[in-house]
Amino acid sequence: MLEKVDITQKIKKAEYAGMITELEFKLANLQRQAKDMKIPVIIVFEGWDAAGKGTMINRLLLALDPRGFKVHPTNPPAEDERLRPFLWRFMVRTPEKGIIAIFDRSWYGRVLVERVDKLVKKEVWSKAYDEIKSFERQLVDDGNVIIKFFMHISQKEQKKRFKKLESNSSTAWKVDKNDWKNYKHYNKFLKATEEMLAKTDTDFAPWTIVESHDWRFANVKVFNAVINTLENKINEVKKKGAKKAPTRRKTVGHKGITSILDKVDLSVDLAREEYDGVLKKYQNRMRDLEHEVYKKRLSVIMVYEGWDAAGKGGNIKRFLKMMDPRGYEVIPIAAPNDIEKAHHYLWRFWKAIPKAGHIAIFDRSWYGRLVVERVEGFCTEEEWKRAYREINEMEEQFVNFGTVLIKFWLQVDKAEQLKRFKERQQNPHKQWKITDEDWRNRKKWNQYKTAVDEMLLRTSTSYAPWTIIESNSKLYARIKVLKTVIKEIEKKL
Amino acid sequence: MLEKVDITQKIKKAEYAGMITELEFKLANLQRQAKDMKIPVIIVFEGWDAAGKGTMINRLLLALDPRGFKVHPTNPPAEDERLRPFLWRFMVRTPEKGIIAIFDRSWYGRVLVERVDKLVKKEVWSKAYDEIKSFERQLVDDGNVIIKFFMHISQKEQKKRFKKLESNSSTAWKVDKNDWKNYKHYNKFLKATEEMLAKTDTDFAPWTIVESHDWRFANVKVFNAVINTLENKINEVKKKGAKKAPTRRKTVGHKGITSILDKVDLSVDLAREEYDGVLKKYQNRMRDLEHEVYKKRLSVIMVYEGWDAAGKGGNIKRFLKMMDPRGYEVIPIAAPNDIEKAHHYLWRFWKAIPKAGHIAIFDRSWYGRLVVERVEGFCTEEEWKRAYREINEMEEQFVNFGTVLIKFWLQVDKAEQLKRFKERQQNPHKQWKITDEDWRNRKKWNQYKTAVDEMLLRTSTSYAPWTIIESNSKLYARIKVLKTVIKEIEKKL
Repeated sequence: MLEKVDITQKIKKAEYAGMITELEFKLANLQRQAKDMKIPVIIVFEGWDAAGKGTMINRLLLALDPRGFKVHPTNPPAEDERLRPFLWRFMVRTPEKGIIAIFDRSWYGRVLVERVDKLVKKEVWSKAYDEIKSFERQLVDDGNVIIKFFMHISQKEQKKRFKKLESNSSTAWKVDKNDWKNYKHYNKFLKATEEMLAKTDTDFAPWTIVESHDWRFANVKVFNAVINTLENKINEVKKKGAKKAPTRRKTVGHKGITSILDKVDLSVDLAREEYDGVLKKYQNRMRDLEHEVYKKRLSVIMVYEGWDAAGKGGNIKRFLKMMDPRGYEVIPIAAPNDIEKAHHYLWRFWKAIPKAGHIAIFDRSWYGRLVVERVEGFCTEEEWKRAYREINEMEEQFVNFGTVLIKFWLQVDKAEQLKRFKERQQNPHKQWKITDEDWRNRKKWNQYKTAVDEMLLRTSTSYAPWTIIESNSKLYARIKVLKTVIKEIEKKL
Repeated sequence: MLEKVDITQKIKKAEYAGMITELEFKLANLQRQAKDMKIPVIIVFEGWDAAGKGTMINRLLLALDPRGFKVHPTNPPAEDERLRPFLWRFMVRTPEKGIIAIFDRSWYGRVLVERVDKLVKKEVWSKAYDEIKSFERQLVDDGNVIIKFFMHISQKEQKKRFKKLESNSSTAWKVDKNDWKNYKHYNKFLKATEEMLAKTDTDFAPWTIVESHDWRFANVKVFNAVINTLENKINEVKKKGAKKAPTRRKTVGHKGITSILDKVDLSVDLAREEYDGVLKKYQNRMRDLEHEVYKKRLSVIMVYEGWDAAGKGGNIKRFLKMMDPRGYEVIPIAAPNDIEKAHHYLWRFWKAIPKAGHIAIFDRSWYGRLVVERVEGFCTEEEWKRAYREINEMEEQFVNFGTVLIKFWLQVDKAEQLKRFKERQQNPHKQWKITDEDWRNRKKWNQYKTAVDEMLLRTSTSYAPWTIIESNSKLYARIKVLKTVIKEIEKKL
């Protein structure tokens, strides 16, 4: 593939001067439009060492309004990045709506340098193709534009450029032993690059190969590609805007699903003496396991979902009773803030996942989209329908990384909820826990139930199944959570 | 000081049971009030290894609503933290309004372990006392509550606890060689601790020494201290709220200041040929210096301030023309977002400063508070008056860290501004640059001038002086900026 590219194409100096000013004006103008239309843009530069990525990016920047972009140089992952799934550091750097994020090298490092240098095993990097594709597709589905460049030069040209850098005292440091080693392995990198281009050249995020022997030619090609992609996207958004906005249909009764919730046996119970007899034992075991998790750098993510007043808070407290706060983090999820709303809706959850060696407890989670956001119409039907797949993909990436992922649905019945709401109203220490919203949500019990049933069905995967916690008995529920987590962590250790 | 503390004080089990539940309810209730009143709270735990910090924090957490706190364990600084001023990693973790941030060890590490283990020189850690005091004072001035605990046990007790940890297989790893080394140097740490307590026990952020041999006693003491401090603060805020809200007085004519701006000679100019002759030379020199900055891990911060249409954008572009985007970052400053507004107003600038080895270019900056926010009444008079000192302190910390800090005021006169506004309106590529707001601000020229003059006078310090850039001639201005930066970096190298 790459050998068929004519990398020696040129543009003459005189011709270039006439073109570039116009291209710069066009680009600046499109950037302002994209900003106003809140289109997030991701530009990726991959390519050979010394192909001119830095210089190219600088040229692009000089044409742009600095209030509208951010450059992300990609270095080998730092420790806190290695302790999270490999796409984490890129996901958290995806741009806000209206902003251009420029990546100087990117997530493709995993299938290039990390592959060729054998920094990760084949079973790891070969999985990365799918992970990358779903990462990019999710962003594009959410309105992002992704423009990917591979800057191509020949091995001979690379040698010439290395020599030139070495001959200048202030740039000599840029060429090190490692660069020369990579130079010798040009053909290995070529093979990896061709596989990468073939496997990740999608209709939603295509590659543009940039013939980079002549910087003027390369420059014009990059400017044109960015301009064309932005123009297309802007026209597409304008057309859509001219049509009717998507209806925020409230919940949809989903027929034909056997209710999982209906089958839960809520009569299970645990006597106080029995509870007192085992609680401390399990809590102590959890504290020991927390230390093991830290020593082995295991990544543990727990998700608590459930009906209002199902007992999430009390359950979490008992779970944490004997633990060391340096080893866990409770991540309470409320409505998203401004910045979070300006990103893909999974962004804030990616941001929150802790380093391996720690236990994260999500008190509510990304499942909000499939339940409250669906029922209350806080997202479009298209958005929550897309979310089943997006969530499954995200969780698969966590599990691929080695995370123990445990998801609890705390189930109570409608009568039990009513009893607890009333208790809360009467107890001065608990009154703050009950709000008008709780009563409003209760009226929509059946709509919520439909959404929850569909969620449980469609996001219970082999790698991340749901565990239903029968919670009419709080004591039973607390012990079941402890036992489940202990079992899952022990299995992994 | 510490030897006079009776660390053996106890509370009996039966007595404790009766007290703690009530304390927990009180604390939970105060937390909710503080949250509603948007009071940010910082709780610091320092103390001997094995004094029980982790367990104590966990007990505190279990009484709190998890939506309202965040725990920050303090480890030795990671690489990207060492490449910034030492308070950086704490400043960026200060809590949002209404949130409690709990620090398990803290910024005091600099005058304890870093001092005793000689990880930093005396001239560095001895400066830290003042830096810490201004850090804490700034936060308290901004409405934060700071509660600092030192958990105290004897050397003998520490030994007993280490032995106990070692005897359990799942906690043995918690005691390592280093801990035993520190144990041997108990007296050195004691001396450092006493100095720290004496030097940083201020009325705005006092220390509470917690006698920690008996965990029940310690627990009650910590709960009581947090409860009392929160109660006092809540009452104080309520009282203030009952009084009239502070008036957002618009600008105040400041008499008696000799205008610095009036003395600027705006007739200086540079001929096009002369400009063309030197521009490239300086740009190339800057590119080489950028590499030196990276190699030497120098930290460089440039600030651009100036009148609307003074030519900041064009100046920055010429400055960056030949540079490598991996070595610099332009940080454009606009109005703060929700999250930024919920922190100390310097927080977002601290967050933005890059790692040493990089050049940060602030396109507008923290000086907004002293100019636009003052003139337009976006902050209270008390806030902008406080900001002179706050800014000087922040800049001193940057310089203490080794940062080259260069501040430019781009000066044009009123006639030149008018000419440029009109040009912008007539040029289709530049129309977007001129808004109604620019015209409105222009009408307040004199008010702005008063504010700028006072800013230049009061924030031109020996360690961070302002450089006025005469900008009626754009060519002259661009060359002066390049020359100034080159000179300052060369001086430092």
